[in-house]
Amino acid sequence: MTTQDLVQQIRKKKSFLCIGLDTDLEKIPPHLLQTGDPIFEFNKAIIDATNHLCVAYKPNTAFYEAYGIQGWKSLERTIEYLNKEYPEQFTIADAKRGDIGNTSTRYAKAFFEELNFDSITIAPYMGKDSIEPFLSFENKHTILLALTSNTGAFDFQTKKIDGIELYKEVLQISKSYQGAQKLMYVVGATKAEYLTEIRKIIPENFLLVPGVGAQGGSLQEVCKFGITSDIGLLINSSRGIIYASKGMDFAEAAKKKASDLQGQMQKEMESRDLL
Amino acid sequence: MTTQDLVQQIRKKKSFLCIGLDTDLEKIPPHLLQTGDPIFEFNKAIIDATNHLCVAYKPNTAFYEAYGIQGWKSLERTIEYLNKEYPEQFTIADAKRGDIGNTSTRYAKAFFEELNFDSITIAPYMGKDSIEPFLSFENKHTILLALTSNTGAFDFQTKKIDGIELYKEVLQISKSYQGAQKLMYVVGATKAEYLTEIRKIIPENFLLVPGVGAQGGSLQEVCKFGITSDIGLLINSSRGIIYASKGMDFAEAAKKKASDLQGQMQKEMESRDLL
Repeated sequence: MTTQDLVQQIRKKKSFLCIGLDTDLEKIPPHLLQTGDPIFEFNKAIIDATNHLCVAYKPNTAFYEAYGIQGWKSLERTIEYLNKEYPEQFTIADAKRGDIGNTSTRYAKAFFEELNFDSITIAPYMGKDSIEPFLSFENKHTILLALTSNTGAFDFQTKKIDGIELYKEVLQISKSYQGAQKLMYVVGATKAEYLTEIRKIIPENFLLVPGVGAQGGSLQEVCKFGITSDIGLLINSSRGIIYASKGMDFAEAAKKKASDLQGQMQKEMESRDLL
Repeated sequence: MTTQDLVQQIRKKKSFLCIGLDTDLEKIPPHLLQTGDPIFEFNKAIIDATNHLCVAYKPNTAFYEAYGIQGWKSLERTIEYLNKEYPEQFTIADAKRGDIGNTSTRYAKAFFEELNFDSITIAPYMGKDSIEPFLSFENKHTILLALTSNTGAFDFQTKKIDGIELYKEVLQISKSYQGAQKLMYVVGATKAEYLTEIRKIIPENFLLVPGVGAQGGSLQEVCKFGITSDIGLLINSSRGIIYASKGMDFAEAAKKKASDLQGQMQKEMESRDLL
């Protein structure tokens, strides 16, 4: 999917919502546990109920790997379902990978070709030759961790290198990588006040913003400091949407939560004449 | 496995060799492609031929993920085979994972419990709460990326934060994490001259050292600056050993390469009275 296609979907749906599929057998409605593939059945129900309200889905691979082969099968079925039934959705493998060059190429093939995701999240620590292999794939996007939403972000990301914070150095240096126009960045909503500075370095790139809701970030603040003329934001909510209810009505409850967020997003876009 | 068990194995085998199982269908002997599970058959033959010469095996998960479900099955079979036939081997999932707290716990369960690896490699960018979940598992080890062997290491790792390089900051800060005694660190052999400084910060911790051989690092240099009274080194070789031959004699050729390295390691230990 091209960035233009994504922007078009956002305008059409009046939403820049990404739903995180962090599917956990201990948290899904118990009646699903009797099905042959509870993880997939849960995801399918959530996707069917919410797809008109969001533009992206983001399974975090950790939740699938935790269940071994069965988990990977559920992940494969989920992405296949999305690609077949809802090809207009932007799909994100939240994998936070990164390795030396030839090994990163392997990861890129696994997620971009084998599983046909539109994008993958990547950790920047190993630098250029660990990131560029992902940038060489046509119409695929690489979402680099910049400033994450957890407390550990302050251990290294906000430390200053010659007067400039590490996460800014990541933004600045990655701009020079081959294929940098395909870069997006993870910036946590819990740190919305950093967005003004971030937009000075990367005025146009899409930001994937976790941490709205469960982790305490504010949608309004993120929009205030981060929105662009092409929106430039994908705001993720995982637990707040998918675990809205543990009953038979879980998909309906998820739809309601997604609808609330979509409504807020529409308002943010309308108030800025961005639709 | 405890660190003491690992040190005992090193002394017994007179080797601190780790063999990287970066198994690639395009590089393994063609005659194996006719078997039902070429990746596992290749690994099994390599392991059977070399286990008396090394103390650790390190499959890089990227190579397995690239083949989807079949790749994960091969990885599962490989670690099961190691745990059953060679339980004295220290097993490393070279996965370079790391995510926010509850998600890191998922990864830890996947690799430590589901697959029963002794250790996993982790990227430090997300800080404390992304790393500590791995450190809470008994007799399991977390190998943190510090200074990697690739050229991209100079993008961020060697940049100075208040006068101290980022990789040193990673060493220093991680020492204060809960369970830090279970930490090991990745330090590339291509940067052996950095080891003196590194040993000042972490005098005892084990280092996993990639980059000897194919990437140009020197075993002698690494020992000169990095060896401790309990050895404290695992030196990894992947391609240089496992792809020594593409013929029917591939396992025998791998054994010869591993034996060369074991011999050099024995010499390094003997010359320092460490056996």
